[in-house]
Amino acid sequence: MLRWKTILFFLSSLFPVFFSKNVSLYSVISPTYGVNESVRVKEEEEEACGDPTMYEKFWRQTGNAAELVIPGSQTMSYFSDVTNLCWFLEPKFAAEIRRLHRLVGNAIAGPDRYIIVGTGSSQLFQAALFALSTSPEVFGHGGGGRPLPVVSSVPYYSSYPAATDLLQSGLFRWAGDARSLKEGDKPYIEVVCSPSNPDGLLKTASVSSNSGKVIHDLAYYWPQYTAITSPADHDLMLFTASKCTGHAGMRLGWAIVKNREVAKRMMKFIEVSTIGVSKDSQLRAAKILKTVSDQYELEAAEDFTKLFHFARKTMRDRWQTLRLVIAASDAFSLPVFQPQYCNFMKENTLPFPAFAWLKCEQDIDDCESFLRQKHKILTRGGKHFGADAKHVRISMLDRVETFDMFIERLSAIDL
Amino acid sequence: MLRWKTILFFLSSLFPVFFSKNVSLYSVISPTYGVNESVRVKEEEEEACGDPTMYEKFWRQTGNAAELVIPGSQTMSYFSDVTNLCWFLEPKFAAEIRRLHRLVGNAIAGPDRYIIVGTGSSQLFQAALFALSTSPEVFGHGGGGRPLPVVSSVPYYSSYPAATDLLQSGLFRWAGDARSLKEGDKPYIEVVCSPSNPDGLLKTASVSSNSGKVIHDLAYYWPQYTAITSPADHDLMLFTASKCTGHAGMRLGWAIVKNREVAKRMMKFIEVSTIGVSKDSQLRAAKILKTVSDQYELEAAEDFTKLFHFARKTMRDRWQTLRLVIAASDAFSLPVFQPQYCNFMKENTLPFPAFAWLKCEQDIDDCESFLRQKHKILTRGGKHFGADAKHVRISMLDRVETFDMFIERLSAIDL
Repeated sequence: MLRWKTILFFLSSLFPVFFSKNVSLYSVISPTYGVNESVRVKEEEEEACGDPTMYEKFWRQTGNAAELVIPGSQTMSYFSDVTNLCWFLEPKFAAEIRRLHRLVGNAIAGPDRYIIVGTGSSQLFQAALFALSTSPEVFGHGGGGRPLPVVSSVPYYSSYPAATDLLQSGLFRWAGDARSLKEGDKPYIEVVCSPSNPDGLLKTASVSSNSGKVIHDLAYYWPQYTAITSPADHDLMLFTASKCTGHAGMRLGWAIVKNREVAKRMMKFIEVSTIGVSKDSQLRAAKILKTVSDQYELEAAEDFTKLFHFARKTMRDRWQTLRLVIAASDAFSLPVFQPQYCNFMKENTLPFPAFAWLKCEQDIDDCESFLRQKHKILTRGGKHFGADAKHVRISMLDRVETFDMFIERLSAIDL
Repeated sequence: MLRWKTILFFLSSLFPVFFSKNVSLYSVISPTYGVNESVRVKEEEEEACGDPTMYEKFWRQTGNAAELVIPGSQTMSYFSDVTNLCWFLEPKFAAEIRRLHRLVGNAIAGPDRYIIVGTGSSQLFQAALFALSTSPEVFGHGGGGRPLPVVSSVPYYSSYPAATDLLQSGLFRWAGDARSLKEGDKPYIEVVCSPSNPDGLLKTASVSSNSGKVIHDLAYYWPQYTAITSPADHDLMLFTASKCTGHAGMRLGWAIVKNREVAKRMMKFIEVSTIGVSKDSQLRAAKILKTVSDQYELEAAEDFTKLFHFARKTMRDRWQTLRLVIAASDAFSLPVFQPQYCNFMKENTLPFPAFAWLKCEQDIDDCESFLRQKHKILTRGGKHFGADAKHVRISMLDRVETFDMFIERLSAIDL
């Protein structure tokens, strides 16, 4: 079974330029010194994102169902629905978001919750920081000293500090590990990413305090990555199409918000920074989400033709492969997970996270450099996530050729 | 000729709910006290934007040429072109941008210029502020005291101060009228919008100083609004699809940048804030721009079937109508423009700006309230633009029914 992979690996060594078309986050085919600046920028970004190209295979098999046709005269106005607080949210997209959450059971998204659409959940994260740091209702008058500290428990998603401090805002500033805060501390904002990027573990807010407000980033709370144990019902939750259906290029995320003032302040941020969000992508996302729900609700189809079953099987296979390779040597380790019952899949399941949080177990202090320079495996080092350099983050969502090449190279490491 | 307009006006008084579907920036059909909060928010935003729904009529007549079909498996990756510095810019879109500027002759956009795509030119404006305030190359080491003042000559686009100060950045801050700066002042950034929003006049940078860097917002430098006298060739120029083809809902703008470091810093801003820009909208914009250029370059069609000719005729007719109404009373005045030779249209032409900058000539101090409360005409007051309250800005880009209703109401004012 491994034979063709060996051939592929051999060929890639001979013809790096050809194979470099499969640019991936963990396998830099052309050696580092041969990478030009643009490609290097791209690789760094790609690793930062976890490009979900694994899903292309699924969407190719859906045919016309998920195809969108937009006439030249559509989506011209800035406005989507003047009766909605979020006036740039396409009603079809909003309806499909609520429908999908009801189907999967991963979040409460009924009509009494505000849905705010954003240019990816990155924009919504910043909108949430803006809203929480400028709504007097949130921390009470005079309660919110500025800049408000923003924290997350280590290891945290590397984009949180970058996005928080991008403009050196006077409203909020990155303050690192949530565990450094103490009960009774002044007002702060905590970001809780669960299941966690980068390590896949389930997380809850670190400090239980009235002076803290929490942003719940639930990008990975979908049945392909983890057990759906109950519908999430937090004050402010973020989701993104990228990690749900794999459509990263649509740049669409949505927030589910309980408090009207917070929702209005988030709107204000998006209005001023981008005057709304691409309507073309929203119409497309409506079609994509509709296809997913229709597969489950309307069609008597085989499981592998349904998104979450397809993606979960792929993730499970990849994690099994990766764990086999890791178990074969003492060089590396992975987080240990516990199985849980998934209400959506109706069975016990282990988590199969979108990223593997790999640790170098032996005396290699800089795991990222070691893997990159010696083994042409591109990862993102632990320091970006507030952790140590013995850890690296590896995306599990790339195309099959790239994943196989990564496994091949990892297997070849002899420590 | 005015008869049906009179009937329309009469009907709108009788059935405000029906007519309120034509929500517009200058005509609030339902009286102010009857407007609910969402609609009010929407109206304010709409006036802030100048919703270009006038163009819908044009795009309805183009049929299949401008229609886009996107299969479910397309535009999934974050990446568009790894060989390009702007790795999230769709190559087809970039090619059509360069082609259109070459056709119209309004900007130098050859292969030696960097094109950066943004979620509307609003995002690019902030990206430019970030780039100019953080690139050491721009002001020299130690030259750029922070926060850098950002200025524009009065009257300026009301979104500039809002976007500059949104996050209370430590990098830059809004400092108002460009004319308040003196030669030899410390480093600053000047935004030059020409033709100007709100008043339609041509502008150049106010202070000629080496310590100032200029962002040229050329959103309205297209042949339907003004004479194209020469290709613009500034260091940093912003354009937007909204005002070129009328596709505001696509949320797409582009910057043309000479300096590589500045382009890279702008990229950094967009990467961190939204990890790129909707690919669906970019593919759609490529198709839309292609349709426009094809009409001029490949098809032997009538002028009115070509975008710039259609839009210019509409704008000219509207401005003639508006000037007739204004001339009939002493209540209001408009800016006076001079004709110039347009290299694209091959004739002398007056400007026909996207906004009318109307002045109340008599003893009405608050023109916005006067028009809104007494005459149900919604405008944006001069103070938002750094000017006095005797001025208001009125969009000229709305649907024909709304424009006609505005003219009807304006004609009825008897001072």
